[in-house]
Amino acid sequence: MDIAALLTSAGINIALCVLLFTLYSVLRKQPSNRIVYFGRRLASVQLRSNDPFSLERFVPSTSWLIKAWETTEDEILTVGGLDAVVFQRILIFSIRIFSIAAVICMFLVLPVNYYGKEMAHKRLGAESLDVFTIGNVQEGSVWLWAHCLALYTISCTTCALLYFLTIGPFIQEYKSITKMRLTHLRGSPTNSSHFTVLVRSIPFVPGESYSHTLKKFFTTYYPSNYLAHQMVHHSGVVQKLMDEAEKMCKMLSAVSSDGRSLKPFCFCTSSTLSFHILSDQPESGDESIRYSDFEIAPPDNVRILTLHAPVLECPVAFVFFKTRFAAVVATQMLQTTNPMLWVTEQAPEPHDVLWSSLSIPYKQLWLRKIATLLAAIVFMFLFLVPVTFVQGLTQLDKLSKTFPFLRGLLKKDYINHVVTGYLPSVILTLSLYTVPPTMMLFSAIEAPISRSGRKKSACLKILYFTILNVFFVNVLSGSVISQLSVFSSVRDIPLELAKAIPTQASFFMTYVFTSGWTGLACELMQLFTFVCNLVKKFILRNYEDAHDWLMAFPYHTEVPRVLLFVLIGFSCSIMAPLILPFLLFYFFMAYLIYKNQILNVYLKKYDSGGLFWPIVHNTTVFSLVLTQIIALGVFGIKDSPVASGFTIPLIVCTLLFSEYCRQRFQPVFKKPAAQVLIDMDREDENGDRFEDIYNRLRTAYCQIQLTSHELRPGLAVTRVNDVAETIPCSGGPKPGSFL
Amino acid sequence: MDIAALLTSAGINIALCVLLFTLYSVLRKQPSNRIVYFGRRLASVQLRSNDPFSLERFVPSTSWLIKAWETTEDEILTVGGLDAVVFQRILIFSIRIFSIAAVICMFLVLPVNYYGKEMAHKRLGAESLDVFTIGNVQEGSVWLWAHCLALYTISCTTCALLYFLTIGPFIQEYKSITKMRLTHLRGSPTNSSHFTVLVRSIPFVPGESYSHTLKKFFTTYYPSNYLAHQMVHHSGVVQKLMDEAEKMCKMLSAVSSDGRSLKPFCFCTSSTLSFHILSDQPESGDESIRYSDFEIAPPDNVRILTLHAPVLECPVAFVFFKTRFAAVVATQMLQTTNPMLWVTEQAPEPHDVLWSSLSIPYKQLWLRKIATLLAAIVFMFLFLVPVTFVQGLTQLDKLSKTFPFLRGLLKKDYINHVVTGYLPSVILTLSLYTVPPTMMLFSAIEAPISRSGRKKSACLKILYFTILNVFFVNVLSGSVISQLSVFSSVRDIPLELAKAIPTQASFFMTYVFTSGWTGLACELMQLFTFVCNLVKKFILRNYEDAHDWLMAFPYHTEVPRVLLFVLIGFSCSIMAPLILPFLLFYFFMAYLIYKNQILNVYLKKYDSGGLFWPIVHNTTVFSLVLTQIIALGVFGIKDSPVASGFTIPLIVCTLLFSEYCRQRFQPVFKKPAAQVLIDMDREDENGDRFEDIYNRLRTAYCQIQLTSHELRPGLAVTRVNDVAETIPCSGGPKPGSFL
Repeated sequence: MDIAALLTSAGINIALCVLLFTLYSVLRKQPSNRIVYFGRRLASVQLRSNDPFSLERFVPSTSWLIKAWETTEDEILTVGGLDAVVFQRILIFSIRIFSIAAVICMFLVLPVNYYGKEMAHKRLGAESLDVFTIGNVQEGSVWLWAHCLALYTISCTTCALLYFLTIGPFIQEYKSITKMRLTHLRGSPTNSSHFTVLVRSIPFVPGESYSHTLKKFFTTYYPSNYLAHQMVHHSGVVQKLMDEAEKMCKMLSAVSSDGRSLKPFCFCTSSTLSFHILSDQPESGDESIRYSDFEIAPPDNVRILTLHAPVLECPVAFVFFKTRFAAVVATQMLQTTNPMLWVTEQAPEPHDVLWSSLSIPYKQLWLRKIATLLAAIVFMFLFLVPVTFVQGLTQLDKLSKTFPFLRGLLKKDYINHVVTGYLPSVILTLSLYTVPPTMMLFSAIEAPISRSGRKKSACLKILYFTILNVFFVNVLSGSVISQLSVFSSVRDIPLELAKAIPTQASFFMTYVFTSGWTGLACELMQLFTFVCNLVKKFILRNYEDAHDWLMAFPYHTEVPRVLLFVLIGFSCSIMAPLILPFLLFYFFMAYLIYKNQILNVYLKKYDSGGLFWPIVHNTTVFSLVLTQIIALGVFGIKDSPVASGFTIPLIVCTLLFSEYCRQRFQPVFKKPAAQVLIDMDREDENGDRFEDIYNRLRTAYCQIQLTSHELRPGLAVTRVNDVAETIPCSGGPKPGSFL
Repeated sequence: MDIAALLTSAGINIALCVLLFTLYSVLRKQPSNRIVYFGRRLASVQLRSNDPFSLERFVPSTSWLIKAWETTEDEILTVGGLDAVVFQRILIFSIRIFSIAAVICMFLVLPVNYYGKEMAHKRLGAESLDVFTIGNVQEGSVWLWAHCLALYTISCTTCALLYFLTIGPFIQEYKSITKMRLTHLRGSPTNSSHFTVLVRSIPFVPGESYSHTLKKFFTTYYPSNYLAHQMVHHSGVVQKLMDEAEKMCKMLSAVSSDGRSLKPFCFCTSSTLSFHILSDQPESGDESIRYSDFEIAPPDNVRILTLHAPVLECPVAFVFFKTRFAAVVATQMLQTTNPMLWVTEQAPEPHDVLWSSLSIPYKQLWLRKIATLLAAIVFMFLFLVPVTFVQGLTQLDKLSKTFPFLRGLLKKDYINHVVTGYLPSVILTLSLYTVPPTMMLFSAIEAPISRSGRKKSACLKILYFTILNVFFVNVLSGSVISQLSVFSSVRDIPLELAKAIPTQASFFMTYVFTSGWTGLACELMQLFTFVCNLVKKFILRNYEDAHDWLMAFPYHTEVPRVLLFVLIGFSCSIMAPLILPFLLFYFFMAYLIYKNQILNVYLKKYDSGGLFWPIVHNTTVFSLVLTQIIALGVFGIKDSPVASGFTIPLIVCTLLFSEYCRQRFQPVFKKPAAQVLIDMDREDENGDRFEDIYNRLRTAYCQIQLTSHELRPGLAVTRVNDVAETIPCSGGPKPGSFL
């Protein structure tokens, strides 16, 4: 591939980007597209509904870019949560490190590469890209010092930036962010998770309900801190009962037009799972209440359903504690001598709970994890087929030998440029679209307790997949087509990589154009949602904005994507520095566009509290060490023992740095600090806010409200206040609602 | 090697063993050897001091064997602690599993091997040992089914035994053992560790002592459970002060013959670290007390030294809590957002504390760990030199080619038998004697907080070393001499092992004779201590029994040794079943002899609470899987696809079993269970034993008593009672003793 092919590829993508950006800036102003481009805002604020028709709506503008640029980190934190801030920090980090790398490599390494061999240079347009890579440097050249120096600078800067960035948001500024979060969350019921412990695998005691066993255990062993608990029920059964209850209530309101006076208590016997109408009179014995499945208390429009049937209980419950510290103590301790019973973990936030996986027996989980791990590995190897095919395209001479009938077509320069420069990465990008749903499926089979946990697990799987299948296989299979046995000899991999990376630089550049630039433009355009919206509004004639479409930010696809570019950037930096300006442009664009998307499009449904950062940290260190190992290989090939000798201590230091960071930072992401928790508890105690929090706790985790779509909107607004009135919090819990 | 050579080797070792056993049974009856053979009993009970001279003393007897046989597990628990019980269980497990393996393999596999090929068998004495291995089975033979069946039986039995044995001592019987331990420990001050947390890396606050900072932190964040604390001081400084104090006290008692009336308060200024005599009058201000280094309260013969000098403090302290549960909570929590500060861990038992490593800064530890890991790896590879040399000896033809002058000597049959059958394992055994001290040194550099922790770490290192250098290198380098590059291709290792194991069976048999049988006899004889005792008593004419010689049981050498035999047993079982009876005899002997040694020789200085069991469990599963992989290789070589096919699910099932055990048992060995702790706390609370325990706590951890050998004996007896009188426990702690 030569400069001209590169420019063709860049040109196509730039044209596409400009087109999509222009379209976006126009389309976003059309009221019908609001749900597509301002989903988050629509959900939170009531926007002006009908603009007057004006010409301004059809003039492309760049105001959204300026708006995104001006948004501060605090606003992002308020709007998108800590996860969004962490994601922005990844991009800022990338911009910083690759700015420095670009300056050094463009002004020091690139000239060394270009004038590395004594040769007659062609005119720039026809110059092969290989001339700009380290492959062009004479063997044994003293100028390899430049590469070594660049490597040192990049490594040191990366480590320093990484250290201060990790220190930044989580350690030194932790308190301030915690405080921000507290101020932000105090009004909302979302920090209920701090007081809540998810207990799984409650042992079965004959003749006792799980609820009873649990209450006995926690009142015995945590008497001073146990507040209340809430059982989890089999979700299928819950759904069935919900449907019946709906029917029942409709029937009841048909019988009596005034729902209030009838006071419909719907009782069901556990054997039939059906409803009967009982009379209005108060129950005398407890027995009948014990078998009630739903209790419908009917203030206008608000129906609070409380499920209470021992036979439908899973051995899983949310247990509420009186302080944050007590809750964390309960999660950190091993409860009994059998670690498979009474398993406690920090509960996810209420909106984050994945109810469907809670009913899966805890004992299955380790088997499920092994099974999905194996399945993911098999999937990765199956995926080698399209990747190997893609790599065939970059080597046209081999392709035209295999398919002689293509030879005429491929001789045309333009076609040649398109096929070598553009087609491979398009195919790769398209086939990569199948990966996130598959990995999400695997992660769902693992039965994580929270949506954010599922996303994080999928993120890790996609990341491994991307690094293996996009990076390694492309590099290695591209250099020697169909040489899949390259993995058999572990020792040769650095040398193979050192040989392959410079030759594969052109592929990675086109990958940056297609998957990077155009990918961003597509992200901005939200093509899929846009088309769906068009179909719905102009073909199905349904003008209502559907809030179902609103999505959470897809961290599981975007984090691996950005990290892949970081990996490409590092490994190409001193080998083929020409890629760096393009990559830097990508990161800058990504910074603005993702900011815009977080502000306008994606809902913050749940927040993992920045748990993506360790993944980012580890991957960055991995990329850096890989780069150093490849450099070692290259210096070996180029006969520069001095440069090799200087690279080895660099690798050792980087590994030591990584180990230090593991010691220094990892525990913070796994356990909350006692000091912070106790301080928060005391603050709440002094402010007399505990009563409030306890009230909120009792209704925070509601399996029924979340599984039923119809009941939610009505409840979402008034839930907290109504419950505070109906359930006394200081007295003993009501038998029907909390045991 | 043929049967005759094997019998020569067995004969030499049996003769040696009988000789040593006879010697032992006589020597143990001599009063002068009591300290060698009854060290533990001497330390605990006062034995009859002077037997009358009788002939009985010089008649060999087997009474000790019968005594050992009759000792129950409860007695072992009382005498040797849980570690000794666990060690005995390893041997019982080995006896059980290899009895079953021996029966199956001797009656099913051995005949199949012997008649595997149609050949004229020589007379039994001249038969090569190879005839008894799987190497003699025809390729593609249907009889390989026998091997596959034996493998299945052994695997299933092992897993079942392992499961029930692990369940046994720690899960189902845990309560009873816990209760036994409690009854056993209640009278002694050893369970202080349950209430104590070791805090490291206390941050330095300008103008405040570490002690003050610590008190502030724990009274703020654990106000209801914090009891007291005790700073750790720099051990070198403590030793120096101790010596000076001794001098000082001698000087004082020289000045006044009545130590009581002088009431010697020895004060020292922090700058000079020397002592001055102060007057008897009580101090008015706190300042002078602040700088006191020693406070010597002199009831007769008992001197309690309390060190209190801020300048000498390490940022390390033992913090005492009011309940066991509170202490464990403090160890499980991350204290602040900086995981490198306020590091808490469960304190070891007082006798178990390794004071010298407590003063090492916590921040160094991870570097030290990496350094020792690297050093241990380097050591392992350096050790390949003697191992390779040893293997040369087993192949005499090659040796006589290298050294032609030996040819005449080696032609003699007897020399040949000795050199091939005996010398290799003697050299190996001797050079292996350097390993435990080296590994112990490495483990000491890691700065573990307890002696048992150091021993466990050394045990792991020695185990890895043994498996790599004794097992793998012997097997692989023996088959093809000096072929050290065999490790380069990982995939071929199973095949290489499958080829090598049957040919190396003879080496392992002689290893069982020398290192196993004779090693046990040497262990029984305590040769080193015996010679030292002889020299001391009959050359130096010192008839006093020195208690310094009494050692704790060397788990770090004996556990890996037994596990190596387990590994050899498993991997040879279906390949070369002839080894099994010899091995079984070894385990049986080991069971009796180690029981005898635990009863009579070794002191229980500290107890890790059975923490060796996970190592044993994992190694056994590793051995089993390795055996299965080797069997897979052998079945491959022997062209038996059906047997190979049946082995693969076995491997998968064993790995799943191992993973299940990891889930089911590992947490129990890492964290204590809340239920057990709270129950114990309540029991103590109901029995009003807390006051007693608190009193004991305040003097349990004494750095000075332990570092000074001269003060210990006097204190050991009367410490607890005296302290209970001198220090009030319910009131505020004395300023000088506890801050």
